[in-house]
Amino acid sequence: MTSTFLRKKSFPSISPPHDATEGSETADLAARLLVAPTALMQLTMPEARTVVRYMQPQIVSKDTVFIREGDVLDTGFLMLLLDGEVTVETQVVSRAEPIVITLLGPGSLIGELGMFDGLPRYASCVAATQLRCAILTRAGLSRLMEENPGIAAKLLLAVSLRIGARLREVTDKLKMYVQLTQAMEQEIGSRPEA
Amino acid sequence: MTSTFLRKKSFPSISPPHDATEGSETADLAARLLVAPTALMQLTMPEARTVVRYMQPQIVSKDTVFIREGDVLDTGFLMLLLDGEVTVETQVVSRAEPIVITLLGPGSLIGELGMFDGLPRYASCVAATQLRCAILTRAGLSRLMEENPGIAAKLLLAVSLRIGARLREVTDKLKMYVQLTQAMEQEIGSRPEA
Repeated sequence: MTSTFLRKKSFPSISPPHDATEGSETADLAARLLVAPTALMQLTMPEARTVVRYMQPQIVSKDTVFIREGDVLDTGFLMLLLDGEVTVETQVVSRAEPIVITLLGPGSLIGELGMFDGLPRYASCVAATQLRCAILTRAGLSRLMEENPGIAAKLLLAVSLRIGARLREVTDKLKMYVQLTQAMEQEIGSRPEA
Repeated sequence: MTSTFLRKKSFPSISPPHDATEGSETADLAARLLVAPTALMQLTMPEARTVVRYMQPQIVSKDTVFIREGDVLDTGFLMLLLDGEVTVETQVVSRAEPIVITLLGPGSLIGELGMFDGLPRYASCVAATQLRCAILTRAGLSRLMEENPGIAAKLLLAVSLRIGARLREVTDKLKMYVQLTQAMEQEIGSRPEA
């Protein structure tokens, strides 16, 4: 069993301000990916650079489970994937192996829901390759809200949009499954018992 | 066919600032309901009063369909229900009558997703009684973000939390339906053809 990367690796303190990404090549990449269509395209580049100043760079080794389904401890962060691939999985009661929900590549935002509500993670994320990423903790977001409220508001609007898009997707899937089960109920009802 | 209330009733202009709710009894009620657990409890009362200054009061007659499933026009507003009851419905392909998803009472926030993304409404909302409500338009939110970015950030954080909570609920339901259809597939597979 792999422990989550935040436990395995001590997480860089954010006080005093930890601007390791600032001015570096990684910071540039993070800012560019933050405004890409896969993440938060509502921010301008200067705004994205400001947000990146509140993030910390992080390397995650291949095969690390850095978000674990059901976890209630390491929920207070949002991750911007700079480089590498992530497998998102969920455990289904009737199966031994988890099922893969999706694969995420560079530019993906991961964990934004948990950063907000701190509730149990509802899927696991596994590093399919070594990852380079930038992390925004809940504490980092609080500092951003205090020091740059206008940019924080734009960031939060953009993140709300992303969560909303996922809500619409999942709702569409649910509607489809409701209809599928109705059709199957009829199918079962119309056949004689074996 | 009832037209949506925003078309039926000309919507109060928000420029110059339309603070009809300010200082009134309705404004007090709106601010109190805005910080209640059913809406955005993360705001303080003074912050809620500021938000209410960017909202407009609105009366909706009984039986008005004020949000229509699939609508792409009147999507740019969020509504705080002050008084009355709302039925949320969705149309299912296989049925003539829409199915009721939920009933909402005073203190409920309605339409927050559409205010953000402007995409087609994915359920209809009908006034089961006459409604008293406070409306925040997309333009009102933009003004709030410019003039009071700190409060806007807190409002957006709170709204993100609500959308996130709904995403978790719908995802849980989806997981349940996936398992249900798997069980039904086995049931259908194990029976002989009629």
